[in-house]
Amino acid sequence: VNEIIARKKAGKKLSAEDIQKFVAGATTGDIPDYQISALLMAICFRGMDITERALLTQAMAKSGRQFNFDRVPGLKVDKHSTGGVGDKTSLVLAPWLAAAGRKIPMISGRGLGFTGGTLDKLAAIPGYSIEYSEASLTTMLLDVGCFVIGQTADIAPADKKLYALRDVTATVDEISLITASILSKKLAEGLDELVMDVKCGSGAFMQNLRQARELAASIAATAKSAGVHTTCLITAMDFPLGRFTGNTAETHEAYEFCKPEGKYIETARAIFVDKRRLTAEQALIGPLVEITCELAIAMYDAHAGKSAKAKQVAFADLLAIWSSGALERQFARWVETQHGDLPAFERKASEILSGLQSNSATETHTFISPREGYLTACNSMQLGNLMVDLGAGRKKSTDIVSDEVTLEMLAARGTQLRKGQPIMRVYKKEMSPEQKKQIDAVAAMAFAIGRARPKAAKNILARI
Amino acid sequence: VNEIIARKKAGKKLSAEDIQKFVAGATTGDIPDYQISALLMAICFRGMDITERALLTQAMAKSGRQFNFDRVPGLKVDKHSTGGVGDKTSLVLAPWLAAAGRKIPMISGRGLGFTGGTLDKLAAIPGYSIEYSEASLTTMLLDVGCFVIGQTADIAPADKKLYALRDVTATVDEISLITASILSKKLAEGLDELVMDVKCGSGAFMQNLRQARELAASIAATAKSAGVHTTCLITAMDFPLGRFTGNTAETHEAYEFCKPEGKYIETARAIFVDKRRLTAEQALIGPLVEITCELAIAMYDAHAGKSAKAKQVAFADLLAIWSSGALERQFARWVETQHGDLPAFERKASEILSGLQSNSATETHTFISPREGYLTACNSMQLGNLMVDLGAGRKKSTDIVSDEVTLEMLAARGTQLRKGQPIMRVYKKEMSPEQKKQIDAVAAMAFAIGRARPKAAKNILARI
Repeated sequence: VNEIIARKKAGKKLSAEDIQKFVAGATTGDIPDYQISALLMAICFRGMDITERALLTQAMAKSGRQFNFDRVPGLKVDKHSTGGVGDKTSLVLAPWLAAAGRKIPMISGRGLGFTGGTLDKLAAIPGYSIEYSEASLTTMLLDVGCFVIGQTADIAPADKKLYALRDVTATVDEISLITASILSKKLAEGLDELVMDVKCGSGAFMQNLRQARELAASIAATAKSAGVHTTCLITAMDFPLGRFTGNTAETHEAYEFCKPEGKYIETARAIFVDKRRLTAEQALIGPLVEITCELAIAMYDAHAGKSAKAKQVAFADLLAIWSSGALERQFARWVETQHGDLPAFERKASEILSGLQSNSATETHTFISPREGYLTACNSMQLGNLMVDLGAGRKKSTDIVSDEVTLEMLAARGTQLRKGQPIMRVYKKEMSPEQKKQIDAVAAMAFAIGRARPKAAKNILARI
Repeated sequence: VNEIIARKKAGKKLSAEDIQKFVAGATTGDIPDYQISALLMAICFRGMDITERALLTQAMAKSGRQFNFDRVPGLKVDKHSTGGVGDKTSLVLAPWLAAAGRKIPMISGRGLGFTGGTLDKLAAIPGYSIEYSEASLTTMLLDVGCFVIGQTADIAPADKKLYALRDVTATVDEISLITASILSKKLAEGLDELVMDVKCGSGAFMQNLRQARELAASIAATAKSAGVHTTCLITAMDFPLGRFTGNTAETHEAYEFCKPEGKYIETARAIFVDKRRLTAEQALIGPLVEITCELAIAMYDAHAGKSAKAKQVAFADLLAIWSSGALERQFARWVETQHGDLPAFERKASEILSGLQSNSATETHTFISPREGYLTACNSMQLGNLMVDLGAGRKKSTDIVSDEVTLEMLAARGTQLRKGQPIMRVYKKEMSPEQKKQIDAVAAMAFAIGRARPKAAKNILARI
């Protein structure tokens, strides 16, 4: 192993044998942590090329349980996001693509830090279960077409081992290691295709387009080299995605999204079919709708990105599923199959929403615009961290999260604000005066109010 | 600690607090090995400046037992070498400088790999003891003026910890770490001045002058920053130093060196006083004599390197001590004070030397020149490794060494050889035919025989 470290330190390429030996030894514990961390640090300085990244990804995927859904006919597709604020697209995409005939074996994680986790959002549904045997999962894919379960310790254990060391040795930020960490877990799902949502902006790990492009290119090339076709969309992550942030409210918003009438489908028609200008209410959910639909199109047809015509055809199919009520029914069927009690969940969600709308002094707090101007920018990492502080997210992986705490956006990017106009409000039971002060302080920093109307911003920044 | 690693990884300078925290935590075990090795690897890529090196050196010196000889009047001086083949200079320098009024608190190590260790050479003296209390050491310095003892586990334990990790994480070769490792042990001796013999050539860790200069400059600047004036001599290490390699024979050669008549003092006079051309016999020991005398001069007067006059004055003093018999008496007194039985040792040494001279087929083997030509070069690392294979050195630190196995040089660099002329011979009890074959094979590779007489080579390559 000393020689493997020395080779990488000298800037040489590691062989398949080197990488397999390293990953196997790291997983079993045969290679001591101090050698692992020395190699990780050498990789931070020397990097790995695409072949090495693919070998590392595959070795990590093979380090534990690997699903095999070959028995299930149809294209196995998944979507993965690098993490954002208010991102509930997975909850719409899994049933949508399943209703469109794809098979979606989705394995999700919990949130940590300012980013939310799909699993936390689903945990807000009473009874929803996240652990199944491979036989049950195969049956679900055959019968329902999708599942969303939690990561277990036996999936890519090498990644868990390496991540734990990277976290304490300042070696988290290297792109080969990030790429292999993300893809190893996805490769273990036995996918045919993958769509990656690489978030870019103030509420994402990649804060600028250059970094996001670099990661997207690495993921696409590495996944291809490992045999899984991958489309990467780089999407804007500045304002929270959608109207709500907070586990119950987000899952509720995803369910609302799936319904065949209402503002989500109207907004989608305005963007994709009629190309109309959005109303103020539509503008609030415009980015969520556009990004979700773009991801759905990429999952439905991996080649739709290549022509406007192909994209139009794909979206027409998806819209038909949506407007027919098949998406809503698929959502309900999937949740019920995983033992979720949707009526009970909806009762809980409506309590929270009426709590929010009550504007009760003990449970809600509204941040109002301190002056006249245009809402030009938002730092949603700060809002994400505020949610963590209020109990809706985790500082460390063992924290228990509240699924009631909710942040509602009341103004979209570009909104012309009068002084005192509400920008966002927060719902939390038994909110203290200190918490209200904190909300105001964070929001005052997070939102930028300018004199000039901002230029229209893209939601899809790039496609790789 | 994660932040300390991140700072170094980003190429930033570590603070005194960072370095002290790191060394203290590494010594106590509070900082886990995986963080230590990640930082070591980051240092390999980012380096440390002289201030950081001095802080690291001091923190490592302070991690364990530190000697304080303030009670002993006189300048406390030591010499340290980066390691070579046949290097017995310490055994001459300790008594010589003590006889010249300096105090020499010398702590030495055992040999490992192709380089010999002073402690192994002294262990060839029956009864010689290498462990004493600080009170006894103080008394020895006061009464005798020198001691040569072994390193104990409580001297610079941080260095032992870091070295063990460097050895298995491909982080041995970084100059800041090498500098701190060497100096931390010397600083623990409570020195006023240090002379470093940085070996350069085929039988040294530094194989070229650029590397040797870099290390010498680093040691000199770091030691100065840590408050110990240090002179570095870069000396040639291509042929084994002196006539003999092997623990008993080397110690015997050092004792012979100390005598007030004989070829060593004659050779010194030829080099330093009369500037005469050396005879064939003198040429064999010329490099050992010149390097030992130059080191003695630097230890005697730290500023002697600055002018030919100062050097001449210093050497005149040292030569007077030598020619008066004071050096020989000092050698005997020092060895006897440390309970060494010098007469018993001399009987043992003369057995080996007569064994060598007997040319007995079972105990000696002579390598002869395969052709006519000039002896132009020698790879003494190969000869050092041959000695290890024959049992005279260690492959790992727990190996037991033979102090009988001896390599004697019979021709010096530049010697005009006839075909069949002896170049070196090896003494070992019960030598097997395979070992003789190995000796011939190694020697055939190690010695270069050319058609043209080689240009005169310098023994002192640089002075920093």
